[in-house]
Amino acid sequence: MEIKIMKNILDRNQNKADEVRSLLASKQVMMVNIISSPGAGKTTLLERTCEELGSKFRMGVIEGDITTDRDAQRLKKYNIPIVVINTEGGCHLDSHSIAKVLGLFDLDNLDILFVENVGNLICPSQFDLGETFKLALVSTAEGDDKPAKYPMLFREARAVLLNKIDLMPYTNFNRDNFISDLNKINSQIPLLEISCTRGDGLKDWFTWISDQNLKPNFTSSLL
Amino acid sequence: MEIKIMKNILDRNQNKADEVRSLLASKQVMMVNIISSPGAGKTTLLERTCEELGSKFRMGVIEGDITTDRDAQRLKKYNIPIVVINTEGGCHLDSHSIAKVLGLFDLDNLDILFVENVGNLICPSQFDLGETFKLALVSTAEGDDKPAKYPMLFREARAVLLNKIDLMPYTNFNRDNFISDLNKINSQIPLLEISCTRGDGLKDWFTWISDQNLKPNFTSSLL
Repeated sequence: MEIKIMKNILDRNQNKADEVRSLLASKQVMMVNIISSPGAGKTTLLERTCEELGSKFRMGVIEGDITTDRDAQRLKKYNIPIVVINTEGGCHLDSHSIAKVLGLFDLDNLDILFVENVGNLICPSQFDLGETFKLALVSTAEGDDKPAKYPMLFREARAVLLNKIDLMPYTNFNRDNFISDLNKINSQIPLLEISCTRGDGLKDWFTWISDQNLKPNFTSSLL
Repeated sequence: MEIKIMKNILDRNQNKADEVRSLLASKQVMMVNIISSPGAGKTTLLERTCEELGSKFRMGVIEGDITTDRDAQRLKKYNIPIVVINTEGGCHLDSHSIAKVLGLFDLDNLDILFVENVGNLICPSQFDLGETFKLALVSTAEGDDKPAKYPMLFREARAVLLNKIDLMPYTNFNRDNFISDLNKINSQIPLLEISCTRGDGLKDWFTWISDQNLKPNFTSSLL
C-alpha cells in the first residue's frame, strides 16, 4: 500500500515536471538542480558563480530549505532574482513547488536558473523537478564512499563536483577509491575537483557550466 | 490529502515505536538513535566506542543504509551483533523496520543498541524508532549553520556531538555562532566536541554515554 502511494506521488510529480521542462525550454532557460549533503558547499558554489558569471549570464536562484532564508541572504548582494521555498520539514523539493514559484521569475530575461535543493543525498535524486540536469556536489570531508552509498544521485547527475579539495590532506579521503566507485556507477560522468573557498578548479567549472548553456546543445538534451 | 497520508504514516510509526520502547525497557536495553549528515562520522564514532567500551558494555548495532553493507563491514572486527537494514531508496529508518530486526538480537544479553540511521538530517528526526534517545552528530566541515537550518534534530536530541574539530582551523566554521544558534533552539543540551580520527574529547564521550546507561536513570527517562 505504501508503495502504491509512493507511485502516485512520483507519477503526479513526473507530470508536473514535464510541464515545467516544456515551459523552461520554450523560454530557453536552463535549470540546474544542485544536490548535495548539508554543508557540502552549494551556496558557496553559487556565490563564486555569481561573482564570475554574473555579467555573462542572467541568473536566478530557487533556494530550497527546511526553514530560514539564510542561504538566500548570502546571495542577496549579487542582485539576482531569488525565491526561497521553505519545505517546513519536507526533505526535498518537488515539481509542484517549482511550478508554483516559476511565475515569480521573469523567464524571458533569464539564462540559468539554479535550484539549491534541500541538503540531502537521497530523496532529491528521486524527484524530477523539470530541471535541464542535476548536479551532484560532494565534499572530501564527507569521505570517499558517497558514490557507492548513494548511487542514484551519481547515475542521474550530468556532472560531479568534488568540493573542499583543500581539506583532502587533513582527511582520510581516498581519491582513487572515490573515482573507482564513481566509474562503476557512471563511467561517462565528468568530475570537476574544486575548492570553492580557495578557488582551485573553479575556472574549469565556469567553462563547463558555460558550455552547457550553449542554447542548441542544452535544448536538444532536454528531449 | 498528502498531509493526511503523512499523518497516518506517522501515527502507525508512533504506535510501533511505543511497542519497541516497551520491549527494550523490559529487557533493560538502551537504544541510541544516531542521526547525522552523510559522512559526518557516525561509523567512526562507533569504531572508537567499540574499541573503548567493548569490554564494559554488551553492544549491538543496527546499520541503516540505502544500499551496501559498507559500514557494517567496518564494524565486523569488533565481534558484536550487527544487523543491516537497506532502505532501498528510503531516506530514514522507521519503527516497523526496527521492530522486525530486533528479533535477530539476543536482547537479554545486550546493554546498548546503537542505531546508525540513514545519513540525513531531516526525516530521521521525524520518525520515532522507539529509541531511548536520539544523538545529533555534526561535523565542523559542514559549517556552523546546521542547528539553525535543521532545528528539529537539535530539539529532539539528548546531546550534540560536534565531530572533526581537528578540521576547524582549515574551515570557516564559527564556534560562537554554532553555540549561540544551538542555545536558542535547546539551551539545556550537552555539547561534546570531539575528533573521532585524532581522539580529542572522546574521553568525555565515553563517560557521557556510560552515564546514560546507569539503568535506573535511563529507564526512568523512558516514561
